[in-house]
Amino acid sequence: MKGSLDFIFRPKSIAVIGATNRKGSIGRELLHNIIDYEFEGKVFPVNPTKSVIHSIKCYSTILDVPDSVDLAVIVVPKELVLTTVEQCGEKGVKGLVMITAGFKEQGKAGAELELQVAALVKRYGMRMIGPNCFGIINADPKVHLDATFSKIRPSFGKIGLISQSGALGEAILAQAQEINLGLSMFASIGNKADIDGNHIIEYWRDDPTVEIILLYLENFGDPRTFSKIAREVSRVKPIIVVKSGKTTQGAAAASSHTGALAGLDVSVDALFEQTGVIRANTIEEMFDVANALAKMPVPKGNRVAIVTNAGGPGILATDALIGSGMSLPQFDQKTVKAIQPILPKGTPVHNPLDLVAGATGVEFRKSLSHVVKDPNIDSVIAICVPPVTIDLNLVADAIIDTAHESKLPMFACFMGVTYGSDAFDRLRQADIPAMIFPESIATTLAHIDKYRRWLSRPEGKIAKIKGDRDKVTEIIARNRKAKNPAVVGDDALQILDAYKIAVAAYKYAFSKEEAAKIAQKIGFPVVMKVNTPHILHKTEYKAVAVDLRTPQEVMEQYVEMQKRIKKAMPNSKEKFSVVIQEMITGGVETVIGMTTDPSFGPLIMFGLGGIYVEIMKDVSFRIAPLTDLDAREMIQSLKGYRLLTGFRGSKPVDIVSIEDAITKLSQLVLDFPDFAEIDINPFIVTADKNNTRAVDARFVLTEV
Amino acid sequence: MKGSLDFIFRPKSIAVIGATNRKGSIGRELLHNIIDYEFEGKVFPVNPTKSVIHSIKCYSTILDVPDSVDLAVIVVPKELVLTTVEQCGEKGVKGLVMITAGFKEQGKAGAELELQVAALVKRYGMRMIGPNCFGIINADPKVHLDATFSKIRPSFGKIGLISQSGALGEAILAQAQEINLGLSMFASIGNKADIDGNHIIEYWRDDPTVEIILLYLENFGDPRTFSKIAREVSRVKPIIVVKSGKTTQGAAAASSHTGALAGLDVSVDALFEQTGVIRANTIEEMFDVANALAKMPVPKGNRVAIVTNAGGPGILATDALIGSGMSLPQFDQKTVKAIQPILPKGTPVHNPLDLVAGATGVEFRKSLSHVVKDPNIDSVIAICVPPVTIDLNLVADAIIDTAHESKLPMFACFMGVTYGSDAFDRLRQADIPAMIFPESIATTLAHIDKYRRWLSRPEGKIAKIKGDRDKVTEIIARNRKAKNPAVVGDDALQILDAYKIAVAAYKYAFSKEEAAKIAQKIGFPVVMKVNTPHILHKTEYKAVAVDLRTPQEVMEQYVEMQKRIKKAMPNSKEKFSVVIQEMITGGVETVIGMTTDPSFGPLIMFGLGGIYVEIMKDVSFRIAPLTDLDAREMIQSLKGYRLLTGFRGSKPVDIVSIEDAITKLSQLVLDFPDFAEIDINPFIVTADKNNTRAVDARFVLTEV
Repeated sequence: MKGSLDFIFRPKSIAVIGATNRKGSIGRELLHNIIDYEFEGKVFPVNPTKSVIHSIKCYSTILDVPDSVDLAVIVVPKELVLTTVEQCGEKGVKGLVMITAGFKEQGKAGAELELQVAALVKRYGMRMIGPNCFGIINADPKVHLDATFSKIRPSFGKIGLISQSGALGEAILAQAQEINLGLSMFASIGNKADIDGNHIIEYWRDDPTVEIILLYLENFGDPRTFSKIAREVSRVKPIIVVKSGKTTQGAAAASSHTGALAGLDVSVDALFEQTGVIRANTIEEMFDVANALAKMPVPKGNRVAIVTNAGGPGILATDALIGSGMSLPQFDQKTVKAIQPILPKGTPVHNPLDLVAGATGVEFRKSLSHVVKDPNIDSVIAICVPPVTIDLNLVADAIIDTAHESKLPMFACFMGVTYGSDAFDRLRQADIPAMIFPESIATTLAHIDKYRRWLSRPEGKIAKIKGDRDKVTEIIARNRKAKNPAVVGDDALQILDAYKIAVAAYKYAFSKEEAAKIAQKIGFPVVMKVNTPHILHKTEYKAVAVDLRTPQEVMEQYVEMQKRIKKAMPNSKEKFSVVIQEMITGGVETVIGMTTDPSFGPLIMFGLGGIYVEIMKDVSFRIAPLTDLDAREMIQSLKGYRLLTGFRGSKPVDIVSIEDAITKLSQLVLDFPDFAEIDINPFIVTADKNNTRAVDARFVLTEV
Repeated sequence: MKGSLDFIFRPKSIAVIGATNRKGSIGRELLHNIIDYEFEGKVFPVNPTKSVIHSIKCYSTILDVPDSVDLAVIVVPKELVLTTVEQCGEKGVKGLVMITAGFKEQGKAGAELELQVAALVKRYGMRMIGPNCFGIINADPKVHLDATFSKIRPSFGKIGLISQSGALGEAILAQAQEINLGLSMFASIGNKADIDGNHIIEYWRDDPTVEIILLYLENFGDPRTFSKIAREVSRVKPIIVVKSGKTTQGAAAASSHTGALAGLDVSVDALFEQTGVIRANTIEEMFDVANALAKMPVPKGNRVAIVTNAGGPGILATDALIGSGMSLPQFDQKTVKAIQPILPKGTPVHNPLDLVAGATGVEFRKSLSHVVKDPNIDSVIAICVPPVTIDLNLVADAIIDTAHESKLPMFACFMGVTYGSDAFDRLRQADIPAMIFPESIATTLAHIDKYRRWLSRPEGKIAKIKGDRDKVTEIIARNRKAKNPAVVGDDALQILDAYKIAVAAYKYAFSKEEAAKIAQKIGFPVVMKVNTPHILHKTEYKAVAVDLRTPQEVMEQYVEMQKRIKKAMPNSKEKFSVVIQEMITGGVETVIGMTTDPSFGPLIMFGLGGIYVEIMKDVSFRIAPLTDLDAREMIQSLKGYRLLTGFRGSKPVDIVSIEDAITKLSQLVLDFPDFAEIDINPFIVTADKNNTRAVDARFVLTEV
């Protein structure tokens, strides 16, 4: 699917099929835009009912066009689409942008038609954007193509922008214009019947005019491909995404802990975490980050200096920065000494640096020139609240000149002025990211800093693990045959064993005497559990007894448990039996699990056991396959991570053995698509890696 | 301190002392503003070097002004302030607005001068706003006073706005104007040498022109008074606050768990939680909420309907609403039936309601008219993304008319248009809160919904509890005399007992035999703890043994523990002894504590015990005194609350006994300011309230 899309984004000639003269119609606006934006190629209107549109000769069908046509933009009524595409194919058109709507988005019949269109496109070896889209733009002066029906003419810049929503297209272009952010290319991809976001990202990876990629997405057509491409492209061009639709997607009914814990959006978050994609919460945020990245280098660290002419906004900015994980280090002594004479006598020099209210361009210029040289500082925010007495343009100039000379990332925050005011315009013209509220700058810096950390860390490796596949295949087959919805008990632990995930010693006992004998063999203390697949949450039925220390205790407990279970499940015909299992002491209970996202595939989960998972929801997810670094990060990202590193005198547990088990599970689920959900619960981790053990597991099978 | 401030905000005559003609000077701008805004009273410029300023007769000193003067606005140099205030006093001026800066904010000498000014003001029975402030505004057409040096002339509206930061004053006024939000009064309060925010809020409580109160604060001068006033005023007029300075305040070194857990900002959050004050995170947010409250009633519930002409923004809005705790219920069957004919055939009617892209004012009008009648809906967001083909003004009119007729709270979200566009202006003129991004609407609604819930809940009562004060006084005195930094062990438990907080039975043992004997008397199982104040975190030294079941176990453990402690603290001269204590089984460990905020006073904390508190930081804080409802809410607000209400078959614990202990502690700390920090840890709560017990406690004494 790789390859250039130049015939779509850099065509030499375009046909607009369905162009009209009718005021307010899409066909008219589109043709008008192409001409008005001064497309550097030929345009051929096509419409059987006209001979001239917009003073240009109009052709009845595309087959009548005398020249060859690279790109056809189609705005004909839905009913004419198949014929039109067919004719484009015959004509040898290479690319289509299908604006026409009324397909998949309007139910079954539309979806059917869309498939036919896609098949036709494929048959003729064409490529298509749409249907049901807003069109495309290439602002490169060498092309200057605006094949949308937008009212906005974007200026040329570094941004490649993909919008899944056609309706949002206009809104997004307006916002870019509002903050003076230049675009390289824009594509509204609509129903993605052929070309999707992944193709365009791949195309832009190699296009020098696109330096930053922005996406507005509602769903991922092919998240696994996105994951692969994004991981690679993020290394060279930042990708910033607004992914909506968090709450509309219904959570599949889950029968495992892991499934129930996978929130609606964890897969998307995991995907972005693993691929270095910057996830913006709003379109506004997406543009703020893009604007900053377009206009300055990525700061080398999270250390910010604030230079302000007013205390209040300095505090607002400090709060927001610290709250976003940035830091405000104190200035180097050299900087302090250099700045001292600029301030009124006795005023302390600290960060945030409060130039007093009367500060003019001169004081800003002097102090900024020292701050940018401070070795403790990675980026600067210059805040100016316009007092009545100073010329804002001079402050803007001070910021612009210092930023340009020093190359240090610098933001301007002019509170109380409006977009479009003189000083603001000046800053923007000079490519200084300027905002009105300091909080937006803090959020922007935090996003960029997270990206910087992703860039600076090693890529990690996906270990190849060889499990005993035959054994697992046999267990799955046997359980499928028995129509078991899940593999549990002995079988489940056998699966772990087949993939070398250590399991606590255990044996089944069918009488109290046998139980006592087994316990003695395993060694005290032991754990006793009812052996039945029908009891899911064993603690609720008191079907687990721990810390049994003597044969006597084992036998007593056997009898009592039998009574309890009989009472709880009077109609069960299963013969009562128990598992006697080695009791792992001095360890931390954890849970390792897997759940399947309908479009992302297997998601691996890790959490601290019991109540931490179930009530505190302190868990992390990653998409399989995981690198060793992914596994480490998902462990470290837990709030309760400190419980693993030695808390209150307890020994730190062997974290490598958790990473190990996680990556083994990742391999297992890739080897066997039969598992819908998995809980390894508890997985007890101790200081001694040889004593770390899975105690119980459950593999929910996919439906067949 | 109560009373009218009419002589400041509604003066009949004003003197501007320090008025000048000098271009760009504050004295000139201020006088100019008063005249330009057409103040409905007399203005007297005062300046010894001029005879006319701005075509108005100028007086040498205020004593020369022939009329009486209600308010003097002072912009003289710092050096002249004392003389000026003295003369104002002599003249019989009632109120001062001191713009002049150079006081407390500039160090010791300034602070000294500020005290002198305040004393002088008091001596003459005057009241003063400032010094170091931006001035005041009263936009009421009957007054029309703009005594600031701002460039902005606010329009009249419902908002009373207090800004602590002078520098932010201009920025805040600009923002209000940008979103067309009318002001009633504005006050920049500067250093608050006399009048502070509390006085003005009290004044505005009784002023009919102020319906919503906004505050930008950097610190609370007198939070206890604020708490009292805010609790009362919030019931009738919403108070919305931006409180900055979260991260600049240094955390006092804390020696208790509770102290360490009190984040930098918990006291402020607790204050707002208890008083119904709406805490906005940014100035933008503050104005969005104010704008909504100014233009529509508080919705009756959290159920929102979305009507949109585009799927994308509908999803963005849904995400943001659900993420903010709002709900999007399905429409009533009646609504569904009524709307069906408006949509293209077969289109499902659900919430968010997606009118297709071609929807015009007609479709918006029809569908909104049904949605506002739906009994499941409390507020409506109408989203319109401007397509090329429709007239936005007609959509705006549909929204305006339906909102006005139905009285249901309604927001308009016009994505991709700019502030100041026709349709936007139309909405604003018609008092429809209109925004560009759906996320801002969601945040606004969530703030208002929280306020609604606060308004709808009963006020709660502060129970008066009678403790044995003599006993506590004696214990404190004895420990102070012994120079103990904290009251621990027996004494600590005695303090709890004096305030009727139940304590687990315990006794000291000085030999293994005695330990066994006591254990037998208390009843097995028992807990054994080292009896020494020097070991804070006992578990780290294994200085606690639990679940001792026989006299034999008690004696063995006594010997082992003695060895361990000897090894851990070889130089201790304390004789080894232990506490034998009743072991509370089947309960949930909790922690109740107190820490002292330098300005807010005692803060009560509640959390689940052990790791929940220490690693998960799952705790809540409230400012003492607490009502019974405050106590209940702080318990219910824990993430781990489910652990108390019966989890996995365990019985629910007696929550009333926790509320009870919390309110008793609240009383204790109000009775005795001697305690800097308190931990009652663990406080074990069981299903049987008669078995709920404090097991250990520690009272850190204030330094004397």
